Amino acid sequence: MPRYAFRIEYDGAPFAGWQRQAEQPSVQGAIEAALARLEPRAHTIAAAGRTDAGVHATGQVAHADLAKDWEPFRLSEALNHHLRPAPVAITACARVADDFHARFSATERRYLFRLVARRAPVVFERGQVWQVQNALDAEAMRAGAAHLLGRHDFTTFRAAMCQAKSPVKTLDEITLEEIALPQGREYRFRLRARSFLHNQVRSIIGTLERVGAGSWAPEDVATALAAQDRSACGPVAPPQGLYLTGVGYPSDPFG
Amino acid sequence: MPRYAFRIEYDGAPFAGWQRQAEQPSVQGAIEAALARLEPRAHTIAAAGRTDAGVHATGQVAHADLAKDWEPFRLSEALNHHLRPAPVAITACARVADDFHARFSATERRYLFRLVARRAPVVFERGQVWQVQNALDAEAMRAGAAHLLGRHDFTTFRAAMCQAKSPVKTLDEITLEEIALPQGREYRFRLRARSFLHNQVRSIIGTLERVGAGSWAPEDVATALAAQDRSACGPVAPPQGLYLTGVGYPSDPFG
Repeated sequence: MPRYAFRIEYDGAPFAGWQRQAEQPSVQGAIEAALARLEPRAHTIAAAGRTDAGVHATGQVAHADLAKDWEPFRLSEALNHHLRPAPVAITACARVADDFHARFSATERRYLFRLVARRAPVVFERGQVWQVQNALDAEAMRAGAAHLLGRHDFTTFRAAMCQAKSPVKTLDEITLEEIALPQGREYRFRLRARSFLHNQVRSIIGTLERVGAGSWAPEDVATALAAQDRSACGPVAPPQGLYLTGVGYPSDPFG
Repeated sequence: MPRYAFRIEYDGAPFAGWQRQAEQPSVQGAIEAALARLEPRAHTIAAAGRTDAGVHATGQVAHADLAKDWEPFRLSEALNHHLRPAPVAITACARVADDFHARFSATERRYLFRLVARRAPVVFERGQVWQVQNALDAEAMRAGAAHLLGRHDFTTFRAAMCQAKSPVKTLDEITLEEIALPQGREYRFRLRARSFLHNQVRSIIGTLERVGAGSWAPEDVATALAAQDRSACGPVAPPQGLYLTGVGYPSDPFG
């Protein structure tokens, strides 16, 4: 059976997360249902990142095996047709080798976290950013983030339910771009690693927000990391600011 | 009674337009209801631009007279509290002179129109852009737009129901920025004039899209304008791509 890779964009708001669940809407379930409209049978797709409830994606990657030899562009068009009106879109599709695995072949995951500070409620990006009321100190957040770069035991920034074998991960990038808005400011954090622990990004952002607000000193992030203790973590940031923006592979399946 | 000016942001999707109507939700009605929570009585606010159903604003300006001498920032905070959960936010508030009128004092209106060309359905900006399937020719659209700059009889680009006394208007700016998206392209049109006719921006954009798609030559825009005939206009663009982004006054009330 020919194997296909998909690049997928979705608004996480109406979903209980990526992963298929019995009684709740999931992104995986929506795409598998669309596949079943094309080839009527049970389908199982595997994704690079199993995003939590409310988390978005602009560059999720998943793969599926199909019986028919589909022309990739036509396949993506047919899936987008059947996905309507769910806020899920296939933005790229490619035929891949049988040993390509969206999750196990991935060598890099990239995330964006959008944090908006302004007094008036956000209007157009409601559910698409984490909003706080007061401006944050970007330089302090950058100083705090710098302690996290590189290879560490991230137990502090790991959900209790995390199933990863080891809490040791290498954070290859954590940058912060500050954007002036007509009212208020937006802070865009970009993180990149081979893989992340469960809730790692949201735990990091929630902690850095405390630094930006002045409740924590930048060095407190280093102390929290060194504690290797979940209770040393700051509050976990809410899901609606988080986006899986891209997945890296030894060879780009859509290249 | 002290007079206040408000800068207002709203998502037009759930509203039948700016203007208060008996049986339908309107932005004006939502704000007047919020004012009535602060000072219980009937309120009437006047806006610079009475946007149509589905049209958005990031910089609408309106004014109202209140009995109490409100501190402007506190007033905006109280209104935003009572506006929830409607997608309407007061982003600035100022005490103004009694002769300030949001509509009649305005000397300039600025609009943005967002047009996205991509195959896959838009996800995050659903209802916030006009989506077409195929890429457009930006240079041709710019050439077509150039014919509209300056003082003209815009009868061709005016809704039949338009109540303006004269169809002669001066278009001071019409620019097009083309942005490459991860998939597809976005075309951002910015238009500026002292005032616009009813449906003028959407009539212009719908016509320019035909130029971008190759159905019209850029010179056909000049011919249509010269016809001074509504039937010479291209299709009217849908409301969800249109934003009132700002209003100019001899002296900026929020400056």
